Amino acid sequence: MLILTPEGRRYLLPVKRSGAFHTHRGYVEFSEIIGQEWGTKVKSFYFLPPTFEEVMKKGIRRQTQIVYPKDGGYLLLRMNIHPGSWVLEIGTGSGAMTALFANYVRPNGKVFTYEVREEFFHLSRKNVMALGLEEFVVFHLKDAREGVEEAEVHACFIDVKTPWEFLQIAWKSLVGGGMLGTILPTTNQVQEWLKSLEAFPFVDVQVVELLERRYKGNAERLRPEDRMVAHTGFLITARKVLEK
Amino acid sequence: MLILTPEGRRYLLPVKRSGAFHTHRGYVEFSEIIGQEWGTKVKSFYFLPPTFEEVMKKGIRRQTQIVYPKDGGYLLLRMNIHPGSWVLEIGTGSGAMTALFANYVRPNGKVFTYEVREEFFHLSRKNVMALGLEEFVVFHLKDAREGVEEAEVHACFIDVKTPWEFLQIAWKSLVGGGMLGTILPTTNQVQEWLKSLEAFPFVDVQVVELLERRYKGNAERLRPEDRMVAHTGFLITARKVLEK
Amino acid sequence: MLILTPEGRRYLLPVKRSGAFHTHRGYVEFSEIIGQEWGTKVKSFYFLPPTFEEVMKKGIRRQTQIVYPKDGGYLLLRMNIHPGSWVLEIGTGSGAMTALFANYVRPNGKVFTYEVREEFFHLSRKNVMALGLEEFVVFHLKDAREGVEEAEVHACFIDVKTPWEFLQIAWKSLVGGGMLGTILPTTNQVQEWLKSLEAFPFVDVQVVELLERRYKGNAERLRPEDRMVAHTGFLITARKVLEK
Amino acid sequence: MLILTPEGRRYLLPVKRSGAFHTHRGYVEFSEIIGQEWGTKVKSFYFLPPTFEEVMKKGIRRQTQIVYPKDGGYLLLRMNIHPGSWVLEIGTGSGAMTALFANYVRPNGKVFTYEVREEFFHLSRKNVMALGLEEFVVFHLKDAREGVEEAEVHACFIDVKTPWEFLQIAWKSLVGGGMLGTILPTTNQVQEWLKSLEAFPFVDVQVVELLERRYKGNAERLRPEDRMVAHTGFLITARKVLEK
Repeated sequence: MLILTPEGRRYLLPVKRSGAFHTHRGYVEFSEIIGQEWGTKVKSFYFLPPTFEEVMKKGIRRQTQIVYPKDGGYLLLRMNIHPGSWVLEIGTGSGAMTALFANYVRPNGKVFTYEVREEFFHLSRKNVMALGLEEFVVFHLKDAREGVEEAEVHACFIDVKTPWEFLQIAWKSLVGGGMLGTILPTTNQVQEWLKSLEAFPFVDVQVVELLERRYKGNAERLRPEDRMVAHTGFLITARKVLEK
Repeated sequence: MLILTPEGRRYLLPVKRSGAFHTHRGYVEFSEIIGQEWGTKVKSFYFLPPTFEEVMKKGIRRQTQIVYPKDGGYLLLRMNIHPGSWVLEIGTGSGAMTALFANYVRPNGKVFTYEVREEFFHLSRKNVMALGLEEFVVFHLKDAREGVEEAEVHACFIDVKTPWEFLQIAWKSLVGGGMLGTILPTTNQVQEWLKSLEAFPFVDVQVVELLERRYKGNAERLRPEDRMVAHTGFLITARKVLEK
Repeated sequence: MLILTPEGRRYLLPVKRSGAFHTHRGYVEFSEIIGQEWGTKVKSFYFLPPTFEEVMKKGIRRQTQIVYPKDGGYLLLRMNIHPGSWVLEIGTGSGAMTALFANYVRPNGKVFTYEVREEFFHLSRKNVMALGLEEFVVFHLKDAREGVEEAEVHACFIDVKTPWEFLQIAWKSLVGGGMLGTILPTTNQVQEWLKSLEAFPFVDVQVVELLERRYKGNAERLRPEDRMVAHTGFLITARKVLEK
Repeated sequence: MLILTPEGRRYLLPVKRSGAFHTHRGYVEFSEIIGQEWGTKVKSFYFLPPTFEEVMKKGIRRQTQIVYPKDGGYLLLRMNIHPGSWVLEIGTGSGAMTALFANYVRPNGKVFTYEVREEFFHLSRKNVMALGLEEFVVFHLKDAREGVEEAEVHACFIDVKTPWEFLQIAWKSLVGGGMLGTILPTTNQVQEWLKSLEAFPFVDVQVVELLERRYKGNAERLRPEDRMVAHTGFLITARKVLEK
């Protein structure tokens, strides 16, 4: 449940039976909300269903980088991930991308995700469960370099610092024409990744970054906001072919 | 079926039983391809499954603006559209957004789309059918200003030049907390839209534009491409509340 | 005199004969610096000659918007302002642009600047004097709408909220082919300005904005900074012609 | 002399005594123009004084990359180059930056420029002479790695592919606190440059890129242009200190 204040603050809360929600603007008893329609205004607060972005930002415990809708949405489309897709993810992390993929491959697709650090294995499971998406995900606590169990996956997303160590595995697991994706923060990593890709049968390599610019929503004085996020990561995708 | 040439040219073709594919680089008999695995290389060409972007660009007949993955993917996530969602679209156009939404609400969601120009009504149906998504779309040849048949939709996307004429209808059709979205090319329209939104119970208005910057994929000389698309449209979203 | 700390903090100080400079990293006696060469390191501090940007940010008292080098430098070149130019400025403000122009028209050019608010008239004089540029500037405390004394100026820069009120005056004062420039924060103002320009003999109208993206200077992990300034203003230039 | 057509085409011409200027829109006898005021309209053409940008683009013979006003103007301000400055340039090329610097250090400053390729040495001299700026430039046909004659320069601009080979020379030639600048197209070069800079007493390293976004100047339908230049180069500046 999302609570939006008049100043645009967002609070993401589990729906409780009793108790109250407190801010410096006053409080609301949960009993005033339960059973109300979404969009209801109580005092000066609005009760809304949270978007994916809001859940990613506030609804899960993260120890890793946030996923921005601009990047997540782009990868979804570019990697051709949709209801029914089989997606291999290497590097589960906090499970944010796992959850995003799971939300869009359901009900008949699947995400297979590998994580080598035990704490993230547990954290990501908890996060995906909190979103009710666990039936669409297979979690592995395993170093994917030692091999993965799945084959013929439609897309493979690698989200680790040294993705080149997993390139052989990724190629083997993908179906012909399948999409390989990664997100990397530094140009040094992009260069290393491009060099590694050259040695494998991948084509149609695309390196992209997306800049999101927001505007102040005043009709009489429309202008971009003063500051913006300047960098999240370089999005790199490629397609498996059978030979080069 | 996508054919990718060594120079990065893309050809989108229906899979034919006989005949051949000709380019200035030579030709390939369709019989050499049929039955081959995706990713196969025949002569210097690769045979690949097309992505959504490629289908939107080359696979449908358009008389309207293209949808970019950066914009389509962002709207999907920000408008919380996913498998199971009910989406109202006002202004079907060539059916590009219709198809995008249909692809992601399936199998248990639905897109309800309204178009007042008969030629676009027919064109969009043809395009959506070509993509095999027609069972997830309800097409209306009707001026939505006269009312729409659906109610309690999760998201409403308006893609017309004067979206403000449909604001009343959109509000009425949306479920509480539901998402309203539009894409507008000029700042004048954005201003008009923002002014109109103020008069209705919509909150959390966001005006965003996304800039996509591509890089040349040379590991030894990594650099952004010389030119880029500078503008597709302003993406504006808001949420229905019950009162303001 | 600029003091740069190891963390990249910048302090702009007048050169004093006695006393000391204090930070949380310790202090430096001015006597240790006086007479030293620029670039000298005392303790962990560097003593440097300030750049224009640093002076604009820290060396003058401002009550108005800062001028960014990206915008100031662009306007200089696009408006063809150089040593020897005669520049008319309408709206002196804190004198930042006045000082920038004065710095680049010297020694044989001149800036003629008009300001209607007495406090800014005095503030800007003080700021320009602090930079030692007063002999290249003629300050007027006068509403330019009532007419300006100068004619045949090479460039006219208008820096007020409603530049359209000064368009007649600007046209009259400019030499044929002379450059008119302004910087405006909102799209509503840009639209109003463009509409006003249509009614006057100005051609070659250009509306530009510059985005400055900085990188973290780590050779092993090169990447853009996380956040950036997203908007300073729209830069609009045009050229006077004798008839349209 | 610049001729601007109604469609916005620009022609840069030497002022001739006789003959005519022809376009597909008709022609103008030079005798109709000579002696006319700037800004005069003859038939549908305007006669204007060219800006620096126009001269750089059309008025000089280039075999190298163009200098954009956004980059040239920024470097001018950030490198603190102004009337009276002494500027060392390594890599004259076609002389575009040489001319820009010369235009802004005059009348009492100087640009000292080094070029090792004889053709560029001659080309740049011709270009700078065509702009009437030769008295502010000292041209050297010499490999700057073997040493430069000047010392105590205020700013040093290196415009070669391997600027790190000139770092020792640049440091030696600069006055304390003096500015070092370069422009590099690839991230690989930026990384190499940053690594090299670490070994020398330079501080306040800034890596910046500027994106220029133009708008269509229609007051009723204001919007960014569809395409833009996405990359010219990374601008990197630093300041000499006496020790690190």
